[in-house]
Amino acid sequence: MDLEKVQPRILPGFMELLPQEQLVFNRILDIIRYNYELFGFTPMDTPVMELSKVLLAKAGGETEKQIYRFQKGDNDLSLRFDLTVPLARYVAMHYNDLVFPFKRYQIAKVYRGERPQRGRFREFYQCDIDVIDQDNLSIDVDGEMPAVISCIFRDLGITKFTIRISNRKLLIGYLQFLGISEKSQDVLRIIDKIDKIGQKVVIDELGNLGLSEDKISSIIDLISVKVKNFDLINYLRDLRIDNQMFIDGIRELESVLNTLKRNFFIDDDRYCTDLTIVRGLDYYTGTIYETILDDYPEIGSICSGGRYDNLTGFYTNKKFQGVGISIGVTRLFDQLLSRNLINIKDKTTLDALVLYLNDDDKEDSLKFLNFLRSHNVRSDIYISNTKLKNKLNYANKINVPFVVILGENERKHHSVMLRNMKTGEQGEVNYEECTRMLGNIEKDKLINI
Amino acid sequence: MDLEKVQPRILPGFMELLPQEQLVFNRILDIIRYNYELFGFTPMDTPVMELSKVLLAKAGGETEKQIYRFQKGDNDLSLRFDLTVPLARYVAMHYNDLVFPFKRYQIAKVYRGERPQRGRFREFYQCDIDVIDQDNLSIDVDGEMPAVISCIFRDLGITKFTIRISNRKLLIGYLQFLGISEKSQDVLRIIDKIDKIGQKVVIDELGNLGLSEDKISSIIDLISVKVKNFDLINYLRDLRIDNQMFIDGIRELESVLNTLKRNFFIDDDRYCTDLTIVRGLDYYTGTIYETILDDYPEIGSICSGGRYDNLTGFYTNKKFQGVGISIGVTRLFDQLLSRNLINIKDKTTLDALVLYLNDDDKEDSLKFLNFLRSHNVRSDIYISNTKLKNKLNYANKINVPFVVILGENERKHHSVMLRNMKTGEQGEVNYEECTRMLGNIEKDKLINI
Repeated sequence: MDLEKVQPRILPGFMELLPQEQLVFNRILDIIRYNYELFGFTPMDTPVMELSKVLLAKAGGETEKQIYRFQKGDNDLSLRFDLTVPLARYVAMHYNDLVFPFKRYQIAKVYRGERPQRGRFREFYQCDIDVIDQDNLSIDVDGEMPAVISCIFRDLGITKFTIRISNRKLLIGYLQFLGISEKSQDVLRIIDKIDKIGQKVVIDELGNLGLSEDKISSIIDLISVKVKNFDLINYLRDLRIDNQMFIDGIRELESVLNTLKRNFFIDDDRYCTDLTIVRGLDYYTGTIYETILDDYPEIGSICSGGRYDNLTGFYTNKKFQGVGISIGVTRLFDQLLSRNLINIKDKTTLDALVLYLNDDDKEDSLKFLNFLRSHNVRSDIYISNTKLKNKLNYANKINVPFVVILGENERKHHSVMLRNMKTGEQGEVNYEECTRMLGNIEKDKLINI
Repeated sequence: MDLEKVQPRILPGFMELLPQEQLVFNRILDIIRYNYELFGFTPMDTPVMELSKVLLAKAGGETEKQIYRFQKGDNDLSLRFDLTVPLARYVAMHYNDLVFPFKRYQIAKVYRGERPQRGRFREFYQCDIDVIDQDNLSIDVDGEMPAVISCIFRDLGITKFTIRISNRKLLIGYLQFLGISEKSQDVLRIIDKIDKIGQKVVIDELGNLGLSEDKISSIIDLISVKVKNFDLINYLRDLRIDNQMFIDGIRELESVLNTLKRNFFIDDDRYCTDLTIVRGLDYYTGTIYETILDDYPEIGSICSGGRYDNLTGFYTNKKFQGVGISIGVTRLFDQLLSRNLINIKDKTTLDALVLYLNDDDKEDSLKFLNFLRSHNVRSDIYISNTKLKNKLNYANKINVPFVVILGENERKHHSVMLRNMKTGEQGEVNYEECTRMLGNIEKDKLINI
């Protein structure tokens, strides 16, 4: 008698990919990682679960509700909900063993028990970089973040994106200047929603805070200014606002623009100042970034971050400041996939599949497979005594670009038949020539934007 | 007034590495992944948590006690404790979208709430490969597992290891032949402990099962036979045991040895038949593997696996058979590290660090940094107006192999001063030459065994 079967399924809100999708997803992670390392970031890996007391030192409200938290033995444990808190804990715990400035990247899954809905995940990858220093972290680093992000999107094949850049000191300094700094948090929270709720509702909500009409229109005038980048810098200077924080904000924003243009030669179209961006998290204190896809603004920011003054305040009196940015790659992938913007078809890890005609040819075929692999050609063999037609059918199913066929003739000649599965072209070549040709397969473009 | 600080710490039993250690650990994962793909395995990624009903369909006893299991909303959830159950669930769930034979690898963390002790981890990486097929999976695949493992250990720099190979059909068939097949499970469980408890205690425990002395000595004679590999095959044949399972076991073991020797040219010293290995998990039905480091047998098996007949029995009536192997890389790394067998020193992601003499040189230095990165040289700049001596001191601390110094002279010449930080040698070279030289840095050997 059979045991009752358990239906195999996963929880909603968890992304699980089929092999071809997974290949593309992993190549995206590879490109991100490659560029992070190219820019001098060192890898970091922290436990998925931490003591709740440590992980939730700073959390509260909405965040806390989403935590996967549980008891095991005597321990109150939680799964990490971002990579920033573990970074803070790591720096506070290991700072004696770290060299500053400390540049680390972490590409890992985080967990939020949200209500599952399209585009929201309970488990998702974040790809974070941060530069941390103990005393004074150069503003040049703020210009490096958009530079590495630009390289990544270029390598992914995403050409039409805009990194929106602002500086929190501008808005906060301006609110100080207007004499309403005690309402800063509320004003910023409202402005943060402008993309979703529109300017009219923002004006209404600012009114609900009890702000006067002229203060509201001052704020709206500032954030909806049409000039961009260096023209914005000039515009802001010309306002002659007598507030040190505002003036610092101008100087820092100008420095970031200079770094991008003069040092990293980032195309002017790929970044843009935008005073409407705020970033919800209140720990940002300077430069802030968001990134949108020009043709798909409804996806929202796919890469965000900023500068903060005090990373480790909950763990130590030592002050660490930093600047960081994060790519929400699970959501980005899901959104691009659902719009058919990712080339999933024809993806394979394999460069070549070895097929043999008859069982007598199997041993030499296995040897040639070994030869290919020892020359770094990702390859496999289809072991079966079925007809060649069925073997080619399997090759088609797994999308392998080339097959290598060995039969009695080829064995006599110490050669193989190399067949291009896309074009159907084939020809007899010797072992070395075959290996050389398979080592030079052109890599596909990944994403079409 | 300051808030009270939370002490930053992690749970015992979780491995968290410092940057240089992490670099080496990640290179180990890269080497494993590279070889898995070279051998035609496709990547897979599954959720860390699954529905307990699904994940624990098969578990029981010791395993179940170790599970991190908790409630979130209406869901009874568990963290995965291995990668085999998620593979079974994945295959049963997605088989319509998979092409068979399905070769997948998964490199991911798994969770077991064990009592923490040296060498035991509650969170650890497993690096699994499996080949799954629906009808008949060729025995040649059983020979491919030790081949890929050998390539990985060779690339890691581990030369003295032995893959122990056996086949469960031999022992089970032999116990059938002795007429004691109803005690198979118990006998196998006792033999499995022979490395730990020794032959004498094994004999005692077999006696406790009520086996007669001559049956016990038959078993001991078989498992302690001194001849190896093809000599063992001849020895087993000469026993002329009249049991079909035993005979099948001989044939399969011989086939694996043939594949290793004749198709993959694996060095005879790297694998060895061993009838004492059993593998605790009762789902193995054919070939089984364990791997030990020759000079450190006390570490135990660092890579194990085998052939199984029914992967997905708890989820579907469809039968999937497979063969797989897994590297327990967290434990391996920890054990090697504690024996000073891993070259941690001088590890860095960076190929070069750019230093400028005076602030006037900064802009050109940033431009040259951008040039290096655009030529795929992993590089960074130390931004500070401190003295060159302090900058070189920083370069030493982060172990960067080369620094590139720009001052007024170099800028006039459109050149840089390239300095080898190990030898102290330095010379003025032009941009292109510098980039060419930095692109050719030799990679270090990773592990000394």
